[in-house]
Amino acid sequence: MSENEALEIVKQELKPPRYAHTLRVVEESETLAKRFGANVEKAREAAIWHDYAKYRSLEEMTKIVYETDIDDSFAEIGGELLHAPVGSYLVKTEQGICDEDVLKAIRSHTTGRKDMSLLEKVVFLADYIEPGRSFPGLQAVREEAERDLDEACLLSIKNTITFLVNKQQPIHPDTFHAYNDFALRKLKGRN
Amino acid sequence: MSENEALEIVKQELKPPRYAHTLRVVEESETLAKRFGANVEKAREAAIWHDYAKYRSLEEMTKIVYETDIDDSFAEIGGELLHAPVGSYLVKTEQGICDEDVLKAIRSHTTGRKDMSLLEKVVFLADYIEPGRSFPGLQAVREEAERDLDEACLLSIKNTITFLVNKQQPIHPDTFHAYNDFALRKLKGRN
Repeated sequence: MSENEALEIVKQELKPPRYAHTLRVVEESETLAKRFGANVEKAREAAIWHDYAKYRSLEEMTKIVYETDIDDSFAEIGGELLHAPVGSYLVKTEQGICDEDVLKAIRSHTTGRKDMSLLEKVVFLADYIEPGRSFPGLQAVREEAERDLDEACLLSIKNTITFLVNKQQPIHPDTFHAYNDFALRKLKGRN
Repeated sequence: MSENEALEIVKQELKPPRYAHTLRVVEESETLAKRFGANVEKAREAAIWHDYAKYRSLEEMTKIVYETDIDDSFAEIGGELLHAPVGSYLVKTEQGICDEDVLKAIRSHTTGRKDMSLLEKVVFLADYIEPGRSFPGLQAVREEAERDLDEACLLSIKNTITFLVNKQQPIHPDTFHAYNDFALRKLKGRN
């Protein structure tokens, strides 16, 4: 499938502002992929599809979680998080996307996870910093993304955890494990 | 073993300021146990022993983690956290304390965990709010502890996570699971 064909399909699945966001994530993913040496084509592909399931019903997404090997914790915490692993499942089953690197990057783009690949970090960060975003702490992440991919990911995850704790919202285990992974690597100088 | 005998043993294991802290945790645990209907005797017993392993060497504690069924994550994250599960193990093996409720309360007193018992919450919170403590956010936890045990535990765990994230320190999985447990129960009105 060509990029344009993929974009046309995604456009049908998303509301216009979300599609515009997707286009910005595609560009940002390309920028980051070039900057940090990831596969540009895969980064663009994962970015194109990353929000594919965004407007599926909670009911459909919850059902898919319980019927597949997606961790049940996604259904338990629910809400905003579900579209990432469910999207990864649906682009494979409905659209025939089968590149595991791409599917993983779609799957982890909201929560992060332990041991993220370079491609996963690129798409995760691109989704967080694309130019349409605006929230406290973002500028520091954008600046760090000019220099250090891991540091920028850690900073974004710190922001997310702090935000969720302040709102007393549950935090998905993958986000927490991503935080510990980045924090421990840094402590041990393994980055 | 009488309380006085236990205190005498603990006094030998601890430096004077830490022993004074222990005595305050014992009193605070009794206060909270009475307030929230926990077993006062067990609360005092767990509090007496809670820091038993505080001055054991990192080497000894790490060895014990790997040789017992204590989760390896305690050794991986290390530092301040080890004395709680290792203390629980040592008061059993060295001092013959075998009340599982008491041992659990010692084990989880620093990290918390998912599905904490009433006794565990009491000792966890007493250790956090005893009158010798002083750090940002503590007053709010003390006030909440007058009213609502779960709410006070949640608040203390939120403080701990925020503190650790700001310092970019790893967070033990049990703390994170405790946070999600309290936050989800509250969201679902299960408290």
